[in-house]
Amino acid sequence: MTLAISIDDVKSAAEQIEGVVARTPLIENIALNKLAGGRVFIKPECLQHTGSFKFRGAYNRLSRLSDEEKARGVLAFSSGNHAQGVARAAELLGIDATIVMPEDAPALKLEATKGYGAKVVLYDRYNEDREEVANRVAGDSGVTVVPPYNDSFIMAGQGTSALEVAEDLNVLGITPDQALVCCGGGGLASGSFTVYRHYFPDMQGYAVEPEAFDDVARSLESGNIESVDFGARSICDALLTPSPGTLTFPVLQEAGAKGLTISDDEARRAVAFASNMLKVTAEPGGAAALAALLAGKVETKDRVTVCIISGGNIAPELLKQCLEDFS
Amino acid sequence: MTLAISIDDVKSAAEQIEGVVARTPLIENIALNKLAGGRVFIKPECLQHTGSFKFRGAYNRLSRLSDEEKARGVLAFSSGNHAQGVARAAELLGIDATIVMPEDAPALKLEATKGYGAKVVLYDRYNEDREEVANRVAGDSGVTVVPPYNDSFIMAGQGTSALEVAEDLNVLGITPDQALVCCGGGGLASGSFTVYRHYFPDMQGYAVEPEAFDDVARSLESGNIESVDFGARSICDALLTPSPGTLTFPVLQEAGAKGLTISDDEARRAVAFASNMLKVTAEPGGAAALAALLAGKVETKDRVTVCIISGGNIAPELLKQCLEDFS
Repeated sequence: MTLAISIDDVKSAAEQIEGVVARTPLIENIALNKLAGGRVFIKPECLQHTGSFKFRGAYNRLSRLSDEEKARGVLAFSSGNHAQGVARAAELLGIDATIVMPEDAPALKLEATKGYGAKVVLYDRYNEDREEVANRVAGDSGVTVVPPYNDSFIMAGQGTSALEVAEDLNVLGITPDQALVCCGGGGLASGSFTVYRHYFPDMQGYAVEPEAFDDVARSLESGNIESVDFGARSICDALLTPSPGTLTFPVLQEAGAKGLTISDDEARRAVAFASNMLKVTAEPGGAAALAALLAGKVETKDRVTVCIISGGNIAPELLKQCLEDFS
Repeated sequence: MTLAISIDDVKSAAEQIEGVVARTPLIENIALNKLAGGRVFIKPECLQHTGSFKFRGAYNRLSRLSDEEKARGVLAFSSGNHAQGVARAAELLGIDATIVMPEDAPALKLEATKGYGAKVVLYDRYNEDREEVANRVAGDSGVTVVPPYNDSFIMAGQGTSALEVAEDLNVLGITPDQALVCCGGGGLASGSFTVYRHYFPDMQGYAVEPEAFDDVARSLESGNIESVDFGARSICDALLTPSPGTLTFPVLQEAGAKGLTISDDEARRAVAFASNMLKVTAEPGGAAALAALLAGKVETKDRVTVCIISGGNIAPELLKQCLEDFS
């Protein structure tokens, strides 16, 4: 079976988005290194435009549409970060965007999405199927639906973040041992591991999910696409995906990725650590990989670990609670 | 009169600290640009090792000591950020460091300084003169006192942050109109404006201070070194300096810098904005320049403004309060 993306697709995405998407830094923190007993490189995608890595894939996808497709507009369904990424990419490219969002999405994400000029349609996350709602909204308008992860341009675009990491590590002459990547539907993880296995064949990739949304971990174990319970809940609103994608999963499998899970409290603790020690704002889902690291779910002693903070769109009220409980 | 530093000193400092000091990114934020009506480039030195720009000057200064001087150790007096910068530079260079800190310095800064292996001596900021205390502690040990700003190696080291900004803007082909720099004793401002006037002769530099610590603003107006009232207070603990330095002030004057002041609430609002919108953790003093920008103290419409966030070492409790009051 042919995989949905290769390293060349990620390199092509990097060219496509250059100058539009921010090149985020690679951060090493003294306190975190001491804690880990090894070197940890943090990739803070919370510093990306729209506050998460999602803008990378969205811009790669939307900028590839034909003029005719652009004129008909785009439609996306998202809990918030993909929404903002698509809305901003559409704003830059002069495309009309409609975003279907769960009515319990963080207010911050709803407002930001509207702020980028998108039309927002709300639905009930727990009693309606978002794809059905999206199809209903689309009708026969000929609008292009932009999936959040199960699309090769999206996956390749998300992988550009890891391409920057690999370039920066190569300049430093450092070969990493392992990478921790936050994982919902597997767009970021599939793009990232495509890059890492190319540059660092011996590197182990870990997809980190909330405990109640361990579909990728279980799928990687069973070898089949597994789903989570429809009633599952987590504070990591960016990672609430029922199952890995038909395009993302084979890439994760082929890369030899493993799954890890974290609790809500581990995520909240990581949010506080990111703010206090790393000086960046992370949202719970964006801090999932860091949470796994801080909770000791992988061996970091005498190893070089790459860890992404994938997003920072957290409500001030929730950040306050994390600081209160875990500082 | 010869100025204490030139652009060549800053370039030499950049070579001296390369690979040890982090190259921080230059961030552009969509929401901030819309608010400003122009382009704003943020230099987040909160992402620097030790959480502030101070590590740059400290490493440049300490690494220039002779082996004999290194063996006798160093002594610094600081409210916290210079303390951490010196402590970490000393740790890396194998130098014993003693730091004299005010007893009301943020606990976070005290602990971090100790964490880098320095010996900490406390004093009463409001009833004792810190230089006298430092001299008493030094005795006849032959220890080298590392001043927080009034030293050409320190000033040149701090200027390396602006050198990175200038390099990044040159790559983008952008000529900035103005720069806002947080200002205590003028180490960062003098180093920065030395760089900016070299690369961008028409750029206007602004030194931003807390209202009660407007010594630099008044000095620039009168043409003489002015001091603040001994009982002055501000939430910006990193900027509580009574007067500009004898070496820093002439550089600020020669660069045609102007002074701006901000209130404590303006600083607290900027801390919340930095966390919520820019996704970085700023301390009040570190957010002073951003505070001036957000409060409209300079015209930003249709202009290109560079604004530093000079430090992020804020107590979680204070960050919580800023988020509570200004989100």
